[in-house]
Amino acid sequence: MAAAAATGNGSAMVEKEIGGPTNPMVTPLLTDLYQFTMAYAYWKAGKHLDRAVFDLYFRKNPFGGEYTVFAGLEECIRFIANFRFNEEDISFLQSAMPTCEDGFFDYLREIDCSDVEVYAISEGSVVFPKVPLIRVEGPVAVVQLLETPFVNLVNYASLVTTNAARHRFVAGKSKVLLEFGLRRAQGPDGGISASKYCYVGGFDATSNVAAGNLFGIPLRGTHSHAFVSSFMSPDDIIDKALKSQDGSRTCEDFVSLVQTWLSKIQLADALRGVFGETNQSELAAFMSYALAFPNNFLALVDTYDVMRSGIPNFCAVALALDSLGYKASGIRLDSGDLAYLSIEARKFFHVIEKEFGISDFGNTAIAASNDLNEETIDALNKQGHEVDAFGIGTYLVTCYAQAALGCVFKLVEINNQPRIKLSEDVTKVSIPCKKRCFRLFGREGYPLVDIICGESEPPPKAGERILCRHPFNESKRAYVVPQRVEELLKCYWSGGSHKPREELPPLKKIRTRCVQQLEQMRPDHMRRLNPTPYKVSVSAKLYDFIHFLWLNEAPVGELQ
Amino acid sequence: MAAAAATGNGSAMVEKEIGGPTNPMVTPLLTDLYQFTMAYAYWKAGKHLDRAVFDLYFRKNPFGGEYTVFAGLEECIRFIANFRFNEEDISFLQSAMPTCEDGFFDYLREIDCSDVEVYAISEGSVVFPKVPLIRVEGPVAVVQLLETPFVNLVNYASLVTTNAARHRFVAGKSKVLLEFGLRRAQGPDGGISASKYCYVGGFDATSNVAAGNLFGIPLRGTHSHAFVSSFMSPDDIIDKALKSQDGSRTCEDFVSLVQTWLSKIQLADALRGVFGETNQSELAAFMSYALAFPNNFLALVDTYDVMRSGIPNFCAVALALDSLGYKASGIRLDSGDLAYLSIEARKFFHVIEKEFGISDFGNTAIAASNDLNEETIDALNKQGHEVDAFGIGTYLVTCYAQAALGCVFKLVEINNQPRIKLSEDVTKVSIPCKKRCFRLFGREGYPLVDIICGESEPPPKAGERILCRHPFNESKRAYVVPQRVEELLKCYWSGGSHKPREELPPLKKIRTRCVQQLEQMRPDHMRRLNPTPYKVSVSAKLYDFIHFLWLNEAPVGELQ
Repeated sequence: MAAAAATGNGSAMVEKEIGGPTNPMVTPLLTDLYQFTMAYAYWKAGKHLDRAVFDLYFRKNPFGGEYTVFAGLEECIRFIANFRFNEEDISFLQSAMPTCEDGFFDYLREIDCSDVEVYAISEGSVVFPKVPLIRVEGPVAVVQLLETPFVNLVNYASLVTTNAARHRFVAGKSKVLLEFGLRRAQGPDGGISASKYCYVGGFDATSNVAAGNLFGIPLRGTHSHAFVSSFMSPDDIIDKALKSQDGSRTCEDFVSLVQTWLSKIQLADALRGVFGETNQSELAAFMSYALAFPNNFLALVDTYDVMRSGIPNFCAVALALDSLGYKASGIRLDSGDLAYLSIEARKFFHVIEKEFGISDFGNTAIAASNDLNEETIDALNKQGHEVDAFGIGTYLVTCYAQAALGCVFKLVEINNQPRIKLSEDVTKVSIPCKKRCFRLFGREGYPLVDIICGESEPPPKAGERILCRHPFNESKRAYVVPQRVEELLKCYWSGGSHKPREELPPLKKIRTRCVQQLEQMRPDHMRRLNPTPYKVSVSAKLYDFIHFLWLNEAPVGELQ
Repeated sequence: MAAAAATGNGSAMVEKEIGGPTNPMVTPLLTDLYQFTMAYAYWKAGKHLDRAVFDLYFRKNPFGGEYTVFAGLEECIRFIANFRFNEEDISFLQSAMPTCEDGFFDYLREIDCSDVEVYAISEGSVVFPKVPLIRVEGPVAVVQLLETPFVNLVNYASLVTTNAARHRFVAGKSKVLLEFGLRRAQGPDGGISASKYCYVGGFDATSNVAAGNLFGIPLRGTHSHAFVSSFMSPDDIIDKALKSQDGSRTCEDFVSLVQTWLSKIQLADALRGVFGETNQSELAAFMSYALAFPNNFLALVDTYDVMRSGIPNFCAVALALDSLGYKASGIRLDSGDLAYLSIEARKFFHVIEKEFGISDFGNTAIAASNDLNEETIDALNKQGHEVDAFGIGTYLVTCYAQAALGCVFKLVEINNQPRIKLSEDVTKVSIPCKKRCFRLFGREGYPLVDIICGESEPPPKAGERILCRHPFNESKRAYVVPQRVEELLKCYWSGGSHKPREELPPLKKIRTRCVQQLEQMRPDHMRRLNPTPYKVSVSAKLYDFIHFLWLNEAPVGELQ
């Protein structure tokens, strides 16, 4: 992509500014065949340059909620900034569409997005059904070719960001949230995108090294069950020396030191009868990990038995580390009853703190993983637990509760003529016209309602009363006097024109926007059970026009 | 990846033979951080070269079924064939793990998969829980690094192939199945992988142009609602001439020809009252599409109203094409009651056939799309319908009914010592030892049972009685006299050794294997409702060993 030389209007300048999509497989061929067959039919009809306006939007919030976080915009802009066909693309298309005239392929050779304009809501914003997330304007044949990649790039990005935001909501602000989903994600960049957008949605870190490298997301990880079971016994450990944290002395036999501590724990009055012999392969693995990462010792404690083996073994190593000046990071639970085990582990840590006078040992971090999702975290909260950090994989990254968001891309205007797409299902009728969208804020600072207006209408103003109408239900109306008005769609791509456009913010800024916007919402829109729908409306003028056009286009039935 | 120069044992030769993964983002960094922290701990402990055997398997068939199709192997082999860290990878890792010694990074610089062996079931095979799909043997540090990418590459591939196979099963062999999911897939290569593996699972074609280009999958597509609504009226059409199919004559005004046919249809006695005025923008779009693709005219008929506008408009264009020697391809329904509409459309076509003497017009193809899945196709079948081809998107490619397959990668042996991973949940206990796996076939030619044996055990033989035991339930046992025995795990990667290995077959062959294997299964394993579980067993010797090791590793409780 990036290597393709650009010769179109103004786009050479643009390519220098904006790199290609994260995934190099995102090329102009990543689209549906019918976009090319339509492009040919437009070209044959001499309509390919007709100026079209398309809206990208969704019809229903995911996960039974009443909000969605918009994401994926940067990838769309990177895509169009580099949109060019190379000769291999063209020859493949010729082979796929052998009846098409050569002139059409010459046309494809020439096109880029220098004649396209993209207005969009800022990435990371909280958004609602029917409001265009992206408005794309340009030659109809070119804009059609963008449909599939745009929808692909926005659908999953927005879905998984929303899922992450919902997990953050239920876990609460104080917990550490780790995305651990790469292995279960839907393909390699299902994993990479998940890591990126879970971070946007409020996660703290990922296990995915590639995502850390690409996006600078903090990385987290310790060891697996295989690591534990790969050791046979402490005899496996050859290099047993460990320098103290301050470098002042060296413990020549860390293995013996740990074993001494294990005996002390075993003999501690308060722990009598809690455990007998611990698993020696596990103990060896913990020692070994501590020797490699004395400053960052976090142990997976459920390979054999959490309370009878994992926790005592961890504590023995942690106390040995403590006596050399290191502070152990904590444990990870990956199976069993996480509420019960975390509480028991916490008690054990408190006993150790008291018994051996190790200050703060009771607060040793407890991380939990194992098929967590919104429901299980909610259930843990209700039961009470002592988990400090959640590692979430499968349910988060595959959006298991609802694996797709139904974004669509609909023609709303062509050559200044508004267009409508009808359907027997009223929720599927599109809102015609090139439009502007505004968010109206109330006295308490919360967003009250989004309003969609025709492009040439006077925009709503703070302090001025405006009638907001439901787009399809004539009886649902409300006058609103907004305290503040925010225009939602901003120019993110102005093609070869010199219209000013928004900069693409760094990922951290998108994350900050997301977190702030979520906090700004009225709580009843956000709750998990029976949330209140946020209102999306149209102006009175647009309402009238929609219904005029609808009657105009729908055939009148004849009953006999 | 491919550009990384290989200097390891034998791998230079190998790299020439096997290209990199389809998605260039699949690099050695596409893994979990803990694989690197463990690698470091192994290296620190001098254990990194310990010879380890890992099994990749899943625990439960997806979608409430009793079978799974294994896919993703080729991508895994392409990955390891090109597995090398480049200097940018190394410097990123150094920044991510700043406390690790330099020697470790020198070690990482050297490693490749020349010392790794991969045995696997052939891609496209029908597979079952607990049986290793892939067995990976090699230095423990290297094999751990492969865990995450292997599981990632197999999980979604196998899940979506299985989903496609299930859709094929319910649709029946005679229907055309089209994968239309790119826009709703979980990211760009969620889309590309879906197209690839749905084809393996028995789909006929895809809309995804990139997948057509990469894998040679047949492409299909026509036009969208936007195309229809982008036209205002037949006056839009400037170039109205169309040559007859045989090239013998030219119709100078195809628009008028269509309008004449539309009037004839309107006046046909048998169709009186079915429709009044049809939508003129739709009619113009159909004319235009026919002028561009007279040999391949397939119209989307539900933009305004299927029976009152779409079908009559389609027939007018199809009849005009017919009078020039062309045969229209058919219609696509994308909303509404597909059973009812397809039956009504079929009736309409039959009336046209009879009324105007157009032979075979009654059999004009009807394609249906709109949120189809296994259940809706099953419901259509039960109601009766006239659909010839199904276009399936969202539910297919996102595996909406179950968005993840839980493949795991477990250590089963290290330095010839068998290892087990215990769990309170018995289904999560791993089967230790390096193993061989066999499929035993019965008299009727169906597979009867899979059996897992220790590597050094004598393999089962055709005609010889063998005891097959449930791995964890002592009372479940059966003697089997197989008519035929098939070894499941074959060598697909022998590293730098000169052991013969299986060739990676072309995609079409994988598809053929899949379709044949599915047909070979006993029907009660395959049915949608309450399918019979296929039996997976272990040899008597392995059974005893599992339970010996289990008791050996599990700590004994002490109750007070």
